[in-house]
Amino acid sequence: MTAISPRKRSAQRCFGGIQGFYEYDSQACGGPLRFAVYLPPAADARLVPVVYYLAGLTCTEETFVIKAGAQRYAAELGLALVTCDTSPRHARFEGDDAHWDFGQGAGFYVNATQAPWAQAYRMFDVVTAELPTVIEQNFPVVPGLRSIMGHSMGGHGALMIALREAERYRSVSAFAPVVAPSQVPWGEKAFGGYLGEDREAWAQYDTVSLLKSRRFPGVPLVDQGCEDAFLDAQLRPELLAAACEAVGQPVTLRMQPGYDHSYYFIASLIGEHLAHHAAALVE
Amino acid sequence: MTAISPRKRSAQRCFGGIQGFYEYDSQACGGPLRFAVYLPPAADARLVPVVYYLAGLTCTEETFVIKAGAQRYAAELGLALVTCDTSPRHARFEGDDAHWDFGQGAGFYVNATQAPWAQAYRMFDVVTAELPTVIEQNFPVVPGLRSIMGHSMGGHGALMIALREAERYRSVSAFAPVVAPSQVPWGEKAFGGYLGEDREAWAQYDTVSLLKSRRFPGVPLVDQGCEDAFLDAQLRPELLAAACEAVGQPVTLRMQPGYDHSYYFIASLIGEHLAHHAAALVE
Repeated sequence: MTAISPRKRSAQRCFGGIQGFYEYDSQACGGPLRFAVYLPPAADARLVPVVYYLAGLTCTEETFVIKAGAQRYAAELGLALVTCDTSPRHARFEGDDAHWDFGQGAGFYVNATQAPWAQAYRMFDVVTAELPTVIEQNFPVVPGLRSIMGHSMGGHGALMIALREAERYRSVSAFAPVVAPSQVPWGEKAFGGYLGEDREAWAQYDTVSLLKSRRFPGVPLVDQGCEDAFLDAQLRPELLAAACEAVGQPVTLRMQPGYDHSYYFIASLIGEHLAHHAAALVE
Repeated sequence: MTAISPRKRSAQRCFGGIQGFYEYDSQACGGPLRFAVYLPPAADARLVPVVYYLAGLTCTEETFVIKAGAQRYAAELGLALVTCDTSPRHARFEGDDAHWDFGQGAGFYVNATQAPWAQAYRMFDVVTAELPTVIEQNFPVVPGLRSIMGHSMGGHGALMIALREAERYRSVSAFAPVVAPSQVPWGEKAFGGYLGEDREAWAQYDTVSLLKSRRFPGVPLVDQGCEDAFLDAQLRPELLAAACEAVGQPVTLRMQPGYDHSYYFIASLIGEHLAHHAAALVE
């Protein structure tokens, strides 16, 4: 891939570092894609590791930046944080804003194969290839020293990508992930629309399915709120627990009493997640 | 005042405590007024002190709750946090949404005397009387054990109220406050509209003016970002420094290199501000 220079949209001092917002011209998405980078104070003096965060349905690159309170911990731990938008926004297709859980803001971190989505909905390529290249070519980060995390749809993305591209990430964590999209309404709608009827294609993007043949060489950290309104219908952490148990994949799956699906839940535990990643990333 | 029972709009677990959103029927504002309360885990077992936060122009009771990352510190320090909307919303007057810095979202923490605003724009009464009563009658807080802080227009509100009602607050702090509203465009527009032409009336709501005759019996903490776009035209911290110096009011005024007017600035320093308040509130 040739060098891509992102355009800066804004940048603000935050916990002694810089919270910046940018966009680059994405080949995968057929147009500009927005992303955000937090650089900790340590990045003034040396290259730092990166934690990629994948957001959930309806979110943008701003959501985690504004709501999670993660910069404080990243500043302390010396980690860069990268988020990106959750779908293409420049390419528009009929019906792409008709549903909050499909199309705009709902890319599900797959490479679509079905028309018209295949023209631009290629968030898997964005997260695994394009964006890390942009980051490592343009920001003071250690090439290849990455971890990945996410929430809900983004928790699905993080776990799925960590299993498929295990050699590219030092650690993985998730908040309230969709662990078996092939078996729940959100995933059936998204995968049916983006990938068509072939369930073999779905399995390549389904954490529980991937665990039949792939392992992550670390211990994924997963937190799930017990009062999450989507727990039983969409998230189903028991399927992740069973799949890991069946194949001997270590996992730390914590059910958190009282917490729901919101960023109040994420903010409450983001420090522990970033410490988990720092333990794998920082020497 | 008779007892007022607030209505709960939502409540979510956050850092082991509860972040709740409520509204009550405000006499001062002529209709429902929204507010938010964070109760730390300590409130499960005992009454806790309260820090009131006053937000800036265009903000609501949600802004600080979502963007400041304050709950973590409040949980650690055992403080309740209370925010409220920045103007009446139920009462509507012609032109109240024509300007972002006057009317809706811009109550400026005064009791308006000019028609039509005097019918409902009475945020001074809300913050100093109605809201504390509602809080102390309905939440597990120590009656009378309060501190106050704010940002920009709300920093004006916090400093002005602390000077006028010094016996009611143990400590005060502000981020990028409007310290001399009578002397800057935001304040001239708001005070002219709400209070009319009489500059004596303005002086009762102007921190720099109030310092000629009033003191706060503690050391206000004020942080101001050096890259704040409103610094020279609207905020003018040098006027606060001079006014305090002239009358012997102690103040900690810190110019913070690199920071702007945003909640990234507030988030970066909110922990120090809450520690300042905890030192005055927690035995």
